[in-house]
Amino acid sequence: MERKTVTPREMIESLLEGKKYSALREVLNTMNPVDIAVIFEEIQDEKIALLFRLLPKELAADAFVEMDEESQKILIHGFSDTELKEVIDELYVDDAVDIIEEMPANVVKRILRQADPDVRKQINEILKYTDDSAGSIMTTEFVVLRPMMTVEEAIKRIRRTGIDKETIYTCYVCDTKSTLVGIITIKDLLLAGEDDTIESIMTTNVISVNTLDDQEEVAQKFNKYNFLALPVVDKENRLVGIVTVDDAIDVMEEEVTEDIQKMAAITPTTDKPYDKIGVFETYASRIPWLLILMISATFTGMIIASFESALAASVVLTAFIPMLMDTGGNSGSQASVTIIRSLSLGEIEFKDIFKVMFKEARVSLLCGVTLAVANFIKMMLVDRMLLNNEDITLAVALVVCLTLIVTIFFAKLVGCTLPLFAKKLGFDPAVMASPFITTIVDAISLFVYFEIATAVLKI
Amino acid sequence: MERKTVTPREMIESLLEGKKYSALREVLNTMNPVDIAVIFEEIQDEKIALLFRLLPKELAADAFVEMDEESQKILIHGFSDTELKEVIDELYVDDAVDIIEEMPANVVKRILRQADPDVRKQINEILKYTDDSAGSIMTTEFVVLRPMMTVEEAIKRIRRTGIDKETIYTCYVCDTKSTLVGIITIKDLLLAGEDDTIESIMTTNVISVNTLDDQEEVAQKFNKYNFLALPVVDKENRLVGIVTVDDAIDVMEEEVTEDIQKMAAITPTTDKPYDKIGVFETYASRIPWLLILMISATFTGMIIASFESALAASVVLTAFIPMLMDTGGNSGSQASVTIIRSLSLGEIEFKDIFKVMFKEARVSLLCGVTLAVANFIKMMLVDRMLLNNEDITLAVALVVCLTLIVTIFFAKLVGCTLPLFAKKLGFDPAVMASPFITTIVDAISLFVYFEIATAVLKI
Repeated sequence: MERKTVTPREMIESLLEGKKYSALREVLNTMNPVDIAVIFEEIQDEKIALLFRLLPKELAADAFVEMDEESQKILIHGFSDTELKEVIDELYVDDAVDIIEEMPANVVKRILRQADPDVRKQINEILKYTDDSAGSIMTTEFVVLRPMMTVEEAIKRIRRTGIDKETIYTCYVCDTKSTLVGIITIKDLLLAGEDDTIESIMTTNVISVNTLDDQEEVAQKFNKYNFLALPVVDKENRLVGIVTVDDAIDVMEEEVTEDIQKMAAITPTTDKPYDKIGVFETYASRIPWLLILMISATFTGMIIASFESALAASVVLTAFIPMLMDTGGNSGSQASVTIIRSLSLGEIEFKDIFKVMFKEARVSLLCGVTLAVANFIKMMLVDRMLLNNEDITLAVALVVCLTLIVTIFFAKLVGCTLPLFAKKLGFDPAVMASPFITTIVDAISLFVYFEIATAVLKI
Repeated sequence: MERKTVTPREMIESLLEGKKYSALREVLNTMNPVDIAVIFEEIQDEKIALLFRLLPKELAADAFVEMDEESQKILIHGFSDTELKEVIDELYVDDAVDIIEEMPANVVKRILRQADPDVRKQINEILKYTDDSAGSIMTTEFVVLRPMMTVEEAIKRIRRTGIDKETIYTCYVCDTKSTLVGIITIKDLLLAGEDDTIESIMTTNVISVNTLDDQEEVAQKFNKYNFLALPVVDKENRLVGIVTVDDAIDVMEEEVTEDIQKMAAITPTTDKPYDKIGVFETYASRIPWLLILMISATFTGMIIASFESALAASVVLTAFIPMLMDTGGNSGSQASVTIIRSLSLGEIEFKDIFKVMFKEARVSLLCGVTLAVANFIKMMLVDRMLLNNEDITLAVALVVCLTLIVTIFFAKLVGCTLPLFAKKLGFDPAVMASPFITTIVDAISLFVYFEIATAVLKI
């Protein structure tokens, strides 16, 4: 007999139903906060508060951070002021800021009222930075050491203050003016002698970011240097916060989603998951580019209109328009997307434009000739001989194949240069992807097609 | 007078030129290994070995790991056996494996011959796992503790053995059979009492991966749970390695590049940067999909051919073909790319298909009606009244606008369902992006167009 496997959620619901609270507490205690958060998002609203109160304080706060804003709102709404204060006290400052940013004004006020004055000050400090800046994703809870401390003193200090810090694995050495003078890892500390001074073993070539730097730049630094945390300094080079690798990973993911959306002609508007975005919001993010691209396609229509008499004389030419447009578009997209990705990985820059063009030109000729040969064989063998279509003459096949080669050549060149120019001019290269390139390449391919056709077919 | 800023590379080259070796050593000592590696990739081949010998041992090894394979080959070629052994001794095992995977067989043999027997065994262990598996990206250097140890003993052990471990921040508690029974962070250790046993303070609900799991799954776990390291166990649940967050970030980046390439009809073949890939390799990764999509476009051509007489009767219809095809393609791509990204972020699953379809249907009607209205106004005001094109009748405008609405509806439905089906059937949804969707939507849009045209215009 097959037995149905019970999901963690069903197990928890049935324990809750049966009021088996101590068993429930044991079960929750073995779970990861992320998985607990998922369960909170799925169970009935009226049971959330009860379940939350079964969690030990620290686990409760960790799970709270991971929940979606709906569950957080329900919980905050049900909290007494004391409960709310307890949760906030357990949160890291940057997590508290993330939550506050999603809450309505009245909830924000309540949260800030319950926070310790010191924490409230730190929260307000971070809230002041614009979205997408390094300051907005940093936390203000880090371990500060002094250059003249001994390793023994430093470890004592970490033991005393470490519990509230987001990371203790990298410690920051500051002078009395809060200027960052070095960093030291806990590994360095543990492997050093107890009487060594911090100054004598710290790393002084510190890579840091400025509070106003773009968060994408921060993520790229993590990617390049394999850091676990990165210090954030203000204009006066004073250490004001750190960004940890988990937040940097979130930024990387956000930026990739934005790039992919832009490549598909979607205006990035939100970082909410697909199932949380409403129909109108989705519509609003998609319609602008559809409109712009539709209007742009008018030019392509005008090219066709101006060759109307040629088309009327040789209607068979119309049948190849979709294939030529698509192949041109696809060739251009391949080049543009490759260049966009290389730009965002920092592999190439604007100064490489001629090298890039030369390479794409050679690739385009190889691709063009291959496709032209394949298409020629197909047109002569399948269309003309097998399907007996007498409109497909040798001349028509030559026109189509020649157009393929020329179109692919231009498509790849347009595809590889536009993202580079966009970057140079300070625009996001990701916009120069498939839809945009396709619209331009369509016009090029049709123009080339009709020019070659009128010349070869004498129409 | 403007002064030209000197790049680090120029500075180092001029110091090298002037044989200022001690100054050079000082300068290199303040630099990050990643930045040193970049300079090695740029300077002349014959100077590489000299510059490398100026680096302190540890920094030399760290920089060596970050270089491209060309510079690594040149260096290894110039190394004496003793020098090679010194560098290998400094490397972490997983970095050594990464290097070996890129080297020709004779160099691999030389490296393995110089490695310590123990290290050689570990390297061969990792090499045995297939590319893309968790085993292939793990390292075998981690800190193992025993359940009955006290915190004091544990910290002593870390101090003694930590120097060679890739991370000491998470320690792994194993029983005598190497079964993983818990994990403990160095933060837990430092904040606990010296006489507590490891068993009493370790976390027992450990999330781990199997050696044979896909590396993408590993990266997703990092993303979901914000780990700094993740244990890798074999079939018998014995701990054989760990994956650290920096390697997981590399995997994320690799997977995103692959997805983006597939979305643009490129066959991912290599993880080399753009400027390191040859023309033929680029050609080989692009031509297969171009061929497949070109052949598929034949069907679109056949649809046009079968409506040839209708087109001959009303040539003005041809001018709107590119606009209809492009708008359909763009609408479909928006939906497909959104779904592909949501799938890879784990936001939706196949079981959500009806919810997704319902939402996309509503979005598509909103988009369709907006575009139809805009297009109707444009055709009647601009094309007919301003440009005086008398072929554009009210009936023609109605045909085009009605086609827009129907096409966008189908485009969005095809775009959102195909990636879900691909995932369900075990294919990569990323292939179901713009180029593929465009080819299908082209055929749909033309078919709809001509059907509506023959019905309304009675041709």
